[in-house]
Amino acid sequence: MITMKDFKEVELKVGKVLSVEDHPNADKLMVLRVDLGEEQPRTLVAGLKDYYDAATLEGKQLVVVANLEPAQLRGVRSEGMLLAAQDGDKVVALTLDEEVAPGSPVL
Amino acid sequence: MITMKDFKEVELKVGKVLSVEDHPNADKLMVLRVDLGEEQPRTLVAGLKDYYDAATLEGKQLVVVANLEPAQLRGVRSEGMLLAAQDGDKVVALTLDEEVAPGSPVL
Repeated sequence: MITMKDFKEVELKVGKVLSVEDHPNADKLMVLRVDLGEEQPRTLVAGLKDYYDAATLEGKQLVVVANLEPAQLRGVRSEGMLLAAQDGDKVVALTLDEEVAPGSPVL
Repeated sequence: MITMKDFKEVELKVGKVLSVEDHPNADKLMVLRVDLGEEQPRTLVAGLKDYYDAATLEGKQLVVVANLEPAQLRGVRSEGMLLAAQDGDKVVALTLDEEVAPGSPVL
């Protein structure tokens, strides 16, 4: 069990996908540029390549852990993590069915 | 900044809304019964009444903080918290645009 205070340590935000490229060094990874309402878009590395094509992701609203320590994933720096549900072999990204401003907080 | 270990303390799951009722003591709150893939559905109290009607929520997939301490909200016990994005006056629940099993973990 966690407290509300614990949960509030995690900064979740809505991000809008600007562009998607294949990861240069990893078959299953994609490199996304995502608008989180900040000055610069963030680069996020995500293991979505077996589940989504780039065209489906571009323009899509996703949910990002915005205050996660950056990590190098196979040589590319990821500045956050996309959230997705896993159901057996299926992976489905969280989204919203109505448009909000990029960077909108998730509460 | 948080670490991946910090984030993993938060148990996020996909829930499917079974039924929705008005909260007996609060104009802005709804009481939802949500299938999280457990033996019993959970009761969740959410401040969605200004933004959603019951019929829109019933059957919908939502995202729930599943390991949050239960809380009494105006006399009704809430066994978790629904996640929604806030953009000014607009509140939009997180969802998925493809069906997964209730209780699927969000990673």
